[in-house]
Amino acid sequence: MNLEPFFKAKSIAVIGASHESGKVGNVIIRNLVDGLYGGKIFPINPNASEILGLKTYPSVNAVKEKIELAVVAVPTELVFKVLGECRKKCIKNVIIVTAGFREVGNAEGEEKLKKLLKKYKIRAIGPNCLGTFNSHTKLDTMFLPRYRLIRPGKGGISFICQSGAVGSAILDLATSRGYGFAKFASYGNAADIDESDLLEYMGSDRDTKVICMYIEGVKNGRKFLETARNVTKKKPVIVIKGGVTAQGSHAIVSHTGSLAGSAEIYFGAFRQAGIIRADSLYDMFNYARILESCVRPKGSRVQIITNGGGYGVLSTDYVITNGLKMAEMSQVTRKILRKQLPKLVNIGNPLDLVGDATTERYKTVMEAALADGAIDAILLIVLYQTPRITTDIVDMIVEMNDRKRKPIVVVSTGGEFTELLSKNLEANGIPTFEYPEAAVRSIKALAEYYITK
Amino acid sequence: MNLEPFFKAKSIAVIGASHESGKVGNVIIRNLVDGLYGGKIFPINPNASEILGLKTYPSVNAVKEKIELAVVAVPTELVFKVLGECRKKCIKNVIIVTAGFREVGNAEGEEKLKKLLKKYKIRAIGPNCLGTFNSHTKLDTMFLPRYRLIRPGKGGISFICQSGAVGSAILDLATSRGYGFAKFASYGNAADIDESDLLEYMGSDRDTKVICMYIEGVKNGRKFLETARNVTKKKPVIVIKGGVTAQGSHAIVSHTGSLAGSAEIYFGAFRQAGIIRADSLYDMFNYARILESCVRPKGSRVQIITNGGGYGVLSTDYVITNGLKMAEMSQVTRKILRKQLPKLVNIGNPLDLVGDATTERYKTVMEAALADGAIDAILLIVLYQTPRITTDIVDMIVEMNDRKRKPIVVVSTGGEFTELLSKNLEANGIPTFEYPEAAVRSIKALAEYYITK
Repeated sequence: MNLEPFFKAKSIAVIGASHESGKVGNVIIRNLVDGLYGGKIFPINPNASEILGLKTYPSVNAVKEKIELAVVAVPTELVFKVLGECRKKCIKNVIIVTAGFREVGNAEGEEKLKKLLKKYKIRAIGPNCLGTFNSHTKLDTMFLPRYRLIRPGKGGISFICQSGAVGSAILDLATSRGYGFAKFASYGNAADIDESDLLEYMGSDRDTKVICMYIEGVKNGRKFLETARNVTKKKPVIVIKGGVTAQGSHAIVSHTGSLAGSAEIYFGAFRQAGIIRADSLYDMFNYARILESCVRPKGSRVQIITNGGGYGVLSTDYVITNGLKMAEMSQVTRKILRKQLPKLVNIGNPLDLVGDATTERYKTVMEAALADGAIDAILLIVLYQTPRITTDIVDMIVEMNDRKRKPIVVVSTGGEFTELLSKNLEANGIPTFEYPEAAVRSIKALAEYYITK
Repeated sequence: MNLEPFFKAKSIAVIGASHESGKVGNVIIRNLVDGLYGGKIFPINPNASEILGLKTYPSVNAVKEKIELAVVAVPTELVFKVLGECRKKCIKNVIIVTAGFREVGNAEGEEKLKKLLKKYKIRAIGPNCLGTFNSHTKLDTMFLPRYRLIRPGKGGISFICQSGAVGSAILDLATSRGYGFAKFASYGNAADIDESDLLEYMGSDRDTKVICMYIEGVKNGRKFLETARNVTKKKPVIVIKGGVTAQGSHAIVSHTGSLAGSAEIYFGAFRQAGIIRADSLYDMFNYARILESCVRPKGSRVQIITNGGGYGVLSTDYVITNGLKMAEMSQVTRKILRKQLPKLVNIGNPLDLVGDATTERYKTVMEAALADGAIDAILLIVLYQTPRITTDIVDMIVEMNDRKRKPIVVVSTGGEFTELLSKNLEANGIPTFEYPEAAVRSIKALAEYYITK
């Protein structure tokens, strides 16, 4: 199935375009214009001749040019009529943002919608959804004002999300942290195109390096698992499942009306399909970042390097409780380091460079750790509060990471100074974390993806 | 034991004061001056007559006035001599920041230090520590530059931390989020004053509402548990224990040289003493914030109110998996809400106010939830990305919280706009969280503290 137009359409009709600021049909047009979408925009509204400076048409049929994608933002009761017009105009792809179907108990309306789409041979995302966003083409149907939801820059993560609110909140947060995205899709009730279709599409999409999904239920379990099995061979798929308890599952009914199913069955199936499961939104994006940027580790032996002893201790605990291994440096490495490091430094794992560690001391250890075959991944803890660390440590870490030898992740906790330096590392493709436990869980996700394959 | 001078001394000698920028003995003086410490500062250095504009003395004995507290920042080999001078000058309280004792295998030196302190009747924090910080008196012996570690404002959390690096990194992070602190103490090797003494002191300290601790080992288990049992009756004590695995425990030996002991024994003892255990630094400060600001809940029945369906589903899962209960609104409340809310809104728990929720709609539900005796705590999810939420929702939540009826915690995920509004809520005493799982775990800590008592 070709979902390209939903992300790369060169012409879009917004049916239900509006003059009124704040209305869905107004926000969508404004976002396309302000977001510098490069294609043609056709606002559709029978009562307007111009919206936000764009010529406005009474219906899609009044447009002479070809329309690749229609965004339907009309009241529920007008959706069927509008689809009829789309059929006449030979529009093959629509995003129905309009709500008021199965999620409010209108199962009848949703059935009718499904039948019409089939009959008209129209492919649809929605209803009750935010639609799509593509950081490359700037195609953007999310009806949320740009001042409330800053749009992400280009990156390798794509996010498929049943729930529009979860999706947009997470996009906004991730963007403020400087993480880039390839594509986003909120598919709502999935009357036609479902999570499996989107997963398959993202699986083949070149810009997408890692796929994240929030799902409440799956429409067709076999289809989903088959698709996942294929996609996870090509790139990592991280899923967070809503409704893992009976009560959570019950809450889903009034949200998207999906059947949630047993958590155990889902989790077992996820494992079989090679899906990485996240238990929280926080973990999901941490996993995505490490999988997007890090090279493949050869094993799960982690070397901890730190300038804070307590962080070394805590990280060691997390390595063990997460089922990873503490690396044991070779005798050669130990000998080299013993010669180069001050006596105060105990050569081991964690390797505590102590409070007066300099960039030079870190560099010595990083060189040795990259060279040592007994180390698979490096957890580098850099607390910038200590007086002798200089900011050129950022350049040193970037240089080491650019050699693409081993996964390197950095943990730094702190305020503005720390944030600034962490963002610099992130921009250079090094995953950074505020807390050691999050870093270790992410290394676990990385190891699981590569090593269980 | 009176530890007041360690936090409230009106005169401080800095032994090992230095001209040289970046040196520990320079940074401490600079911090006292720049931090607007109100007491007298006596830099001690035999080779200088003036440091940072302050008259400098060759030794403490050259100072005519009384010295309440001495900060020792001289090389390891000079510590004993300096203590002799302190004794002559009748200085009763010293903070020894100097390292080079047990933590580097110098057990002999540490034993000698202990004996001298006893003989001289000097009370000491350290060696190998950052010392203390008091947000009220601005007493500050942390030898970290203020541009790297922003000092926190006043607040009710006090933090006792064996590890200086963990302590300072966390202080820095918390400060950048706007969380206030009462006192901070990094006690290092605890040659004299230990975690139990500091715990006892913070337990009686009026400015301290909640105590956080990072500990690797405990010097005297019985003393610690007895102290904790008393303190937890007065205020919450949250502990994160480093070295819960054999490997982590092993790492401690070269950090502070403490004996870590079995994790199970610790955890069992914590429970008996009423200590709240945190498994991560992230959780520790979340727990502290909720315990500092929220009123006592009557039970553990949580009502979830949201404008994002997915967040409602996930939060429900977290409530159940954390052993809390989903509140069941009374019939009266249901009736009232049914009349006041749009038909689209399903009256239940989670209560999904759907994507077009307004401040007014939230207010209706908050009033009802505060009045309903079947609800013990309110988990309020506000996703500011949706178009119809206006910023006056902040005022509404603050007004509701000021009634001090039930714990209210807010979850909002997003970028700058969200952060701004969340900081506003925090400043008004409402704990806010980026992710629902962190909020729910924190409600659990709150319920545990009050309900198991």
